[in-house]
Amino acid sequence: MTQPLWSKSQNNAGSALLGKITNFMSGHDVISDRDLLLYDIQASKVHAEGLMKIGVLSEQELSQINEALSLLSQEFASGTFVLDERFEDCHSAIEWYLTHKLGETGKKIHTGRSRNDQVSTATRLYCRDALLRLQKQSIAIADTCLELAQKYEFVVLPGYTHLQRAVVSSWGMWFAAFAESFVDNATQAKDTHDLINSNPLGTAAGYGVNLKLDRDYTTQALSFNRKQVNPIYAQNSRGKIELQVLSNFKNALLDVRRLSWDLSLFSTAEYGFVDVGDHFSTGSSIMPNKHNPDAVELMRASYSQLVGAYNELESLLSLPSGYQRDLQNTKGALLRGVQSATQCLDLLPELLQSLTINTSRCEAAIDASMFATDKAVELVINEGMAFRDAYRHIKHNYDELQDRQAADSIKARVSPGACGDLLLVEISDRLKALKSEL
Amino acid sequence: MTQPLWSKSQNNAGSALLGKITNFMSGHDVISDRDLLLYDIQASKVHAEGLMKIGVLSEQELSQINEALSLLSQEFASGTFVLDERFEDCHSAIEWYLTHKLGETGKKIHTGRSRNDQVSTATRLYCRDALLRLQKQSIAIADTCLELAQKYEFVVLPGYTHLQRAVVSSWGMWFAAFAESFVDNATQAKDTHDLINSNPLGTAAGYGVNLKLDRDYTTQALSFNRKQVNPIYAQNSRGKIELQVLSNFKNALLDVRRLSWDLSLFSTAEYGFVDVGDHFSTGSSIMPNKHNPDAVELMRASYSQLVGAYNELESLLSLPSGYQRDLQNTKGALLRGVQSATQCLDLLPELLQSLTINTSRCEAAIDASMFATDKAVELVINEGMAFRDAYRHIKHNYDELQDRQAADSIKARVSPGACGDLLLVEISDRLKALKSEL
Amino acid sequence: MTQPLWSKSQNNAGSALLGKITNFMSGHDVISDRDLLLYDIQASKVHAEGLMKIGVLSEQELSQINEALSLLSQEFASGTFVLDERFEDCHSAIEWYLTHKLGETGKKIHTGRSRNDQVSTATRLYCRDALLRLQKQSIAIADTCLELAQKYEFVVLPGYTHLQRAVVSSWGMWFAAFAESFVDNATQAKDTHDLINSNPLGTAAGYGVNLKLDRDYTTQALSFNRKQVNPIYAQNSRGKIELQVLSNFKNALLDVRRLSWDLSLFSTAEYGFVDVGDHFSTGSSIMPNKHNPDAVELMRASYSQLVGAYNELESLLSLPSGYQRDLQNTKGALLRGVQSATQCLDLLPELLQSLTINTSRCEAAIDASMFATDKAVELVINEGMAFRDAYRHIKHNYDELQDRQAADSIKARVSPGACGDLLLVEISDRLKALKSEL
Amino acid sequence: MTQPLWSKSQNNAGSALLGKITNFMSGHDVISDRDLLLYDIQASKVHAEGLMKIGVLSEQELSQINEALSLLSQEFASGTFVLDERFEDCHSAIEWYLTHKLGETGKKIHTGRSRNDQVSTATRLYCRDALLRLQKQSIAIADTCLELAQKYEFVVLPGYTHLQRAVVSSWGMWFAAFAESFVDNATQAKDTHDLINSNPLGTAAGYGVNLKLDRDYTTQALSFNRKQVNPIYAQNSRGKIELQVLSNFKNALLDVRRLSWDLSLFSTAEYGFVDVGDHFSTGSSIMPNKHNPDAVELMRASYSQLVGAYNELESLLSLPSGYQRDLQNTKGALLRGVQSATQCLDLLPELLQSLTINTSRCEAAIDASMFATDKAVELVINEGMAFRDAYRHIKHNYDELQDRQAADSIKARVSPGACGDLLLVEISDRLKALKSEL
Repeated sequence: MTQPLWSKSQNNAGSALLGKITNFMSGHDVISDRDLLLYDIQASKVHAEGLMKIGVLSEQELSQINEALSLLSQEFASGTFVLDERFEDCHSAIEWYLTHKLGETGKKIHTGRSRNDQVSTATRLYCRDALLRLQKQSIAIADTCLELAQKYEFVVLPGYTHLQRAVVSSWGMWFAAFAESFVDNATQAKDTHDLINSNPLGTAAGYGVNLKLDRDYTTQALSFNRKQVNPIYAQNSRGKIELQVLSNFKNALLDVRRLSWDLSLFSTAEYGFVDVGDHFSTGSSIMPNKHNPDAVELMRASYSQLVGAYNELESLLSLPSGYQRDLQNTKGALLRGVQSATQCLDLLPELLQSLTINTSRCEAAIDASMFATDKAVELVINEGMAFRDAYRHIKHNYDELQDRQAADSIKARVSPGACGDLLLVEISDRLKALKSEL
Repeated sequence: MTQPLWSKSQNNAGSALLGKITNFMSGHDVISDRDLLLYDIQASKVHAEGLMKIGVLSEQELSQINEALSLLSQEFASGTFVLDERFEDCHSAIEWYLTHKLGETGKKIHTGRSRNDQVSTATRLYCRDALLRLQKQSIAIADTCLELAQKYEFVVLPGYTHLQRAVVSSWGMWFAAFAESFVDNATQAKDTHDLINSNPLGTAAGYGVNLKLDRDYTTQALSFNRKQVNPIYAQNSRGKIELQVLSNFKNALLDVRRLSWDLSLFSTAEYGFVDVGDHFSTGSSIMPNKHNPDAVELMRASYSQLVGAYNELESLLSLPSGYQRDLQNTKGALLRGVQSATQCLDLLPELLQSLTINTSRCEAAIDASMFATDKAVELVINEGMAFRDAYRHIKHNYDELQDRQAADSIKARVSPGACGDLLLVEISDRLKALKSEL
Repeated sequence: MTQPLWSKSQNNAGSALLGKITNFMSGHDVISDRDLLLYDIQASKVHAEGLMKIGVLSEQELSQINEALSLLSQEFASGTFVLDERFEDCHSAIEWYLTHKLGETGKKIHTGRSRNDQVSTATRLYCRDALLRLQKQSIAIADTCLELAQKYEFVVLPGYTHLQRAVVSSWGMWFAAFAESFVDNATQAKDTHDLINSNPLGTAAGYGVNLKLDRDYTTQALSFNRKQVNPIYAQNSRGKIELQVLSNFKNALLDVRRLSWDLSLFSTAEYGFVDVGDHFSTGSSIMPNKHNPDAVELMRASYSQLVGAYNELESLLSLPSGYQRDLQNTKGALLRGVQSATQCLDLLPELLQSLTINTSRCEAAIDASMFATDKAVELVINEGMAFRDAYRHIKHNYDELQDRQAADSIKARVSPGACGDLLLVEISDRLKALKSEL
Repeated sequence: MTQPLWSKSQNNAGSALLGKITNFMSGHDVISDRDLLLYDIQASKVHAEGLMKIGVLSEQELSQINEALSLLSQEFASGTFVLDERFEDCHSAIEWYLTHKLGETGKKIHTGRSRNDQVSTATRLYCRDALLRLQKQSIAIADTCLELAQKYEFVVLPGYTHLQRAVVSSWGMWFAAFAESFVDNATQAKDTHDLINSNPLGTAAGYGVNLKLDRDYTTQALSFNRKQVNPIYAQNSRGKIELQVLSNFKNALLDVRRLSWDLSLFSTAEYGFVDVGDHFSTGSSIMPNKHNPDAVELMRASYSQLVGAYNELESLLSLPSGYQRDLQNTKGALLRGVQSATQCLDLLPELLQSLTINTSRCEAAIDASMFATDKAVELVINEGMAFRDAYRHIKHNYDELQDRQAADSIKARVSPGACGDLLLVEISDRLKALKSEL
C-alpha cells in the first residue's frame, strides 16, 4: 500500500493483523472506486480550475494538473494504471498520482477540499448519470411497448383478477399499460435528477473552509443546477441521495417484476399465450425436455437486488450528523443496485421484441362467463335495469352469454383507455415531451 | 354482517369457522377504511355526476344520490353511522347505504365501476392529501430552522466527524442544514404529488367497461391533473404509488433521525450543549434522578415505522398484473406509515423552538487541535506552502494553535455556505418559491 | 391521565401541545399493553414473592398484593378495569392499582425493579407463549399434511420447474413436502423457545440493584429454564429476542407463501387441479362471474406483515447499550407480527381439509415429454448408456415416450422420499417425538 | 463458453445480444461458484460412491472419477483450473472436467442427480461450515469478554439509560454482558447447524428419480445427521435455509452493533472512557488533527450488509414450489452476507484486546445523582420506607448523596448478575459446555 495521506505512525501490531484490518476497512472499497474514478477526475479538474480562479494555483499549475489528470484517465482506460489495494481509495490515488507526476504542484490539489466532498461530488455525478440512463431506458421501453400496443391492438388476451378469468382483455391494453408506466418512470427519474443535481463540491469535511472558494464556478462547470449550499447538509445527504436514486430504479423494476410474472405465467403449458425468444431461454441438466424462460425469471428477480441494496444502505443511516466511516458502505450498495438494474432494463426492449403471441390459445381461453360484466352493463343501458339487479340477473343466467365473440367484447370496451379506445396518443404525447427535454 | 354484494351462496361451513375466516379476510380492513370513507364519498359523488353526463342517471337520481352521500358524511362525522365489521369495506358500505336510503336508485351507483377503481381513487385522493401535508410540514420545519439559523448564526458548536472533534462549527450552520434539507423534502413532495395526481376512476376492475364514461369530467371534477389512461396500469399502480408516498415521508424522517441523534448526544451530560424543553421529557420509575429526552428518542425511532410500512408493502408486490387480494394489505401499511410520520413531523417545529443552547459548554468543547485545518489553509495562503506540506507541518506542531478563538474561526470560514457565510437567503428564496406554489 | 410515577413538575407548555406530545409518546403504547398486562401481573406476583423471601415484604403484605393482582386480572377480563390513555403503560397501571387498593403496601411493589425489567419479563413470557403456540400450530399443520399425503399418495400432479412442465409428480409428495417442512418449523420453534426462556426479572434498569434479590426463586416460579444473568445483556436483548421470535414465524409463513402460490395457480381455470372450499372464497362487486380464492391470497400476503414487523423492529436497533425510548416501539411490531401470523396459521389446516382435487385435470396435464427423464435413466440402467448420452438421445427422440402412463411413472420414482417411496414414517417419527416433548 | 449441457440449438440472435444475455443470466453466478466448487467436488465424490453402491458405476469408474475430482481440487487450488465465464456454473464445470478427462465415464456422473440437488447440497455444506465457524467465533468472543470482565471486574463505568447518566456501572458488567450474549449466539448457531444439517442429495430436480439411490449412504458419508426426505421440500428449502443462516449471523452482528456504538461514544473526547488500539484507527485527508476509530464504525456498519443480503434473499421468495431461476440469486446474497460477517467477527477479539481504559475519566463522570437509586433502596431497607416514598424523598433531597463513592456503589450492587456479583462462573459454565460439544 502507498503511504497514506496522514503519515500513519508506525505501530506494533503484527503485519498479519494489519493486513486483516486493512482488508476489512478498505479492501472492497477501493475496487468499488473503479466506477467512480473518472467522475472524481472530472470533478478534480474543476476543483483545480476553481483554485486557480481564487489564486491558489497558477495558470501553469492548473494546466499541468489538468494534463496529468487527462493522462490518468487514459492510463486507467487502457489498463496502464490499475486502481487496487495499493491505494486506500480513488481519492487518495488521484493525489498520489499528481504528486508522483508533478511533485510540489500535486501536493496542492487537496487545498480546500476533503475526501468527504470529493466522494460526494463523484457520487453525485455518478447518480446523475444513472438517473439519466434510467430516463433513457424507460423511454426506450415505453417506445417499444407503444409500438407493440399498436401492433397487437385488437389481439385477444384473457383479463384476470385473483388469477381467475375475469373479462376479455387485449394484448394492446397490456402493452399500453407498461408504456404508460414507463412514461411515469421516466418522468420521476427526470424529477429526481433535477432535485439531486446540486453541487456538494466546496463543502470540505462538512464544515467548509477558510477560503472563499468559487463554488458558483464549479457548479456551472460541472453542469449542476445549483449549489448544495450547506456543508453539514452536504454530508447528511450521503445515503439520502443514494436511497432516492435506488428508489427510482425500484419503480422501474417493480413494473418489470409484474411484467415478468405475466410472461412467466403466459408462457407455461397451461396458459400457452406467448413464447419468449429462444435466446432468452435455457435447458435443464437432467431433464431433456425442458426449455425454460430463464431470462424472464431473472428479470423478475432483479427487483430483489434493489431491495437488498436499498435496505443495506438504509440500515446504515441511523447516525448523528457529520461523516462517520459507516457511510463508506453506502457506496457498494449503490453501485451494485444501479448496475444490476441497468443491466436488466437494457435487455427488456429486446425481450419484448422477441415475444411470439399465440392468438389461438389466447382466444381459446375466453369462456362465456367472461362476458357477464359486459352483459350486465348492456342490461343497464338497454333495459334500464339497475346495475345491481342486472348483476344478479346474470349471475343466475349464464346461458344468455353463449353466443358472444371476444373480438366484439374488446371493441365495445370503450371507456377511455380500455381496449376499445386505448388512447395511445395521450401516452405518446407525454413520451414525446420527455424526449424533447432530454 | 350485511349481505355481501355478490349474494354469497349458503354453505355448510360451521359458523365459528366462518367467523374466523371473515375476521382473517376483512377484519382489520374495514377499520382501516375509516380513513378512506370520506374520500370514497367524494369520488362517488363525482362518479355519479359522470354517470348523469352519459345518461345512466337522471338529474333527479344524481341529486338524490349526492344528498344521501352528504348525509352519510355527516352521519359518519357525528358517529351516527359507524363503519365496522358489519361491512366488508367502505365501498360496499356506500352502496349498502344508498340502496338502503334510496332503493332502486342506490343500486345504480356501481354502474361502470368496480371496487378496484373505487379503492384506487380513494387511496389516490388520500395520498395526494398526505403529500400536500408533507409539503406543508416540511415548509414549516424549514421556516423554523431558518429562523433559528439566523438567531444562532454565530453561536459556536463543535463540528465532528467520526464523532471525533474535527473543526469549529456553529449552531447557525446546523440549523441551516436542516432548513435546506427540508426545502428539498418539500420539493420532492411536490414533484411526487404532481406525478401521482392522475385519475384511476373509470378503469373498473382493471379492464375498463363497455360504457363511454366521461373520464375527462371526473378528472377535472376531482382536480386530478390528468387521467391515468390505462386500466391495467391503474391496477398495477396499487402499491407502486403507495411506495412512492412512503418514500417521500422517509426522506423527511431520515433527516429527523439525524437531527434527533444530534440532539440525543448534545443533551447528554457529557456533551451538555443543549436542553430539550421539559415538556418533551419524562422520568424513570426506579431512578429518582432521571430526566430523559424521550420525545427526541421517539422521533429518532419514527423512521422505523416507515421502514416497516414500506417493507411490508413492497413484500406484497411480487404478483402478476391485475388485482389480487394480497393487495388489500397495502392499505394498512400505507395508513400506518403516513399517520405515524405526520404525527412526528407535526411536533418537530415546537421541539426545535423548545431548545435551550448552553453556549459556554459548546465553547468549552473547542480544543486547540480543532484549528489545525484552518491553520494549514493559512499556511497555504500566507506562506505559499503546498497543502499537503502544510498539513504535515501542523500535524507535528500543534503548539502553534494555542492562541486561537472559536468565534474567529467561525467567521473566517467563508467558503460559500459555511458558518462564515451561511447564504440563508439562497435557502430562503427556494422556500418562498415553494410557498408561492402551494 | 393519572399522575405519573416520577411526579412530573408543572410546566408552561400549553395543554393542547401537551396532549399532542403525550399522544405521540405513549398513545399507542398503552393500547398495545393490553396484550401484556396479564403477563405483567403474573410476573408481578412472583416479584412480590421474591421480595417476601428477602424480607422486603411481610407475608401479609404479599398476600394482599397477590389478592389485589388477582382481582385486577378479573376486572381486566370482565372489562371493569380498562387499560387506556389514563395510564402511561401497563406497568404504571399495576402500581397505580395496588397503591389505590392497598395504600402504603402498594407503594412497595416497585422495590428492586424497574419498568425496564418489568416489560422485558412480560414480553419474554409473551414470546415464550407465542413460540409454544407456533410449535403447536406447526404440529397441527404437519399432522394435516401427513394425513392428506397418505390419502392422496398416488394421485397424479404435474411437477414443474420454472413453471414449465418437468416430470410427473404426485399430490402425496406435495403434501408430504409441507409435512416435513412444518416438522422443521416446529423443531426450530422449540429450539428458540428453549434459548430465549431465560429470566430478565431482577435486572432492574439494566444495572441491577443493591438488594440480594432471589432471582433463582423467580426463575423457577416463572418456569424459566435459567436466569438471564447479566443486567446489561437483559436490556440489550430488547429487540434481539423479538427478532428471533418473528424470525421463527417467518419460517412458517414462508412455507405458507409457497403453498398459497401453488394453490393460487392450481385453482386457476388454466390449471384446474384443485378447488378451494367455498367458504374460503368471495365474489366481485362488478363481475357476476367471479369466484375468487381470496383466503389463499391473503395467506400468501401474510408473510409480508412479518416482513414489515421484522424490518421495523430491526431498524430501531442501531443504539448504544442500555434502554433508550426508541425501544418502546419494538412492542407494537412484535405484537402485530405475532398476531397476524397466528391468525393465518390457525386457518391453514381447515383450508387444506377443504381442498377438492380434480384428478382428471391433473392427469390431462401430463404430456409425453414429462417422461423424458425417466426414460433417460432407463437407458442408463437397461442399455448401459452413459447418462449424458441417454439425455441427448431422448432430446431427439421424443416419439419413444408416447405410450407411458403417469401412474407408472409415480410408482417407479423410487429414490428415497420421492413419489414412489414417500417415507412418511420418517417424517411421522420426528413429529411424534416433537409431540411427546410438548 | 463451453458447450452447455443441453445442446442449445443455434439461433439467429446476434452475438452481441447473446453476450449481453449470457452476462445477465450467469455472469456473476459462476464467479460466486468459486466459493462452492470444493463443496460440490466433495459431494460429487459421495454421489459417485452412491452410484457405485447401486451398480450404476463400476469400482474402477468410481476410482477414476474420484481421482479426477481430487485433481480438479488441486488444480483449482493452485490456479491451474480457473472457474470463469467459460462455464455456466461450477456444476457444469465438474461434468465438463470429468468428461474432458475421462470420456465416457465422465458422462455418467450426472446419473440420478440434477444441478438442483447438486447446488442445494453444496450450499448446505457451505452453510453448515459457516454456522460452525460462527459458533467458534462466538465462543472466541465470549472467551475474550469473560477474560476482560474478570480483569476489569470492579473498574467504574457510568451506566446510562436514554444516554443520560443513570447509575454507577462497571466495565466488568459491560464485558460480561457481551460474554453472555455470545454464549447465546453460539448456542443458537449450534441449534441451527443441527436443524439444517440434513441431506438434499438424491432429490434431483425436486421430484426424485426412478433409481433406488442409496441416500442413507450419502447422508452418512457427508456427515449429515438425517436425510431431507422430501424432494419438493428440498427444493422449497432454497432460500429458507439461507435466511436462517443469515439470521444467525444477524444475532451476532446485532450485538456487535451495540458494542460498537458503545465504543464509538466512549472513545469521543466528550466521554473519553476508552482508547481503541492505534492500528484500528485512521486519519483524515484534510484535518491534520484527526485520529478516528474507523474499525469500530465499520463493525457497527457490518450489520447492514446482513440486512441487505437477508432482504435481497427474502424478496426473491414469493414463488410457487419447484425451482425457478430467480433462486439462483439467493447464492450471491448468502455468500456476500456470510463473508462480510465473518470478516468482522474475526477482528473483534483483537479489537477488544486493544482497548485501553481511562479509569480516571470514567470515575470523573460519576456525579452524585447517580447514587439516588441506591439510596432509595437503602431507605426501604434501613428505614422501612415504601419504595415509592423513598423515591420521592430522594428526588427532593439530592444533597444526601454527596459523600458516596462509585467503588462502593458497584460492590453493593449485589442482585445476582449485577456489578457486585457478576456470576461469571454461570456464564463460563455454559461456555465450557458449548466447547465440549464442538
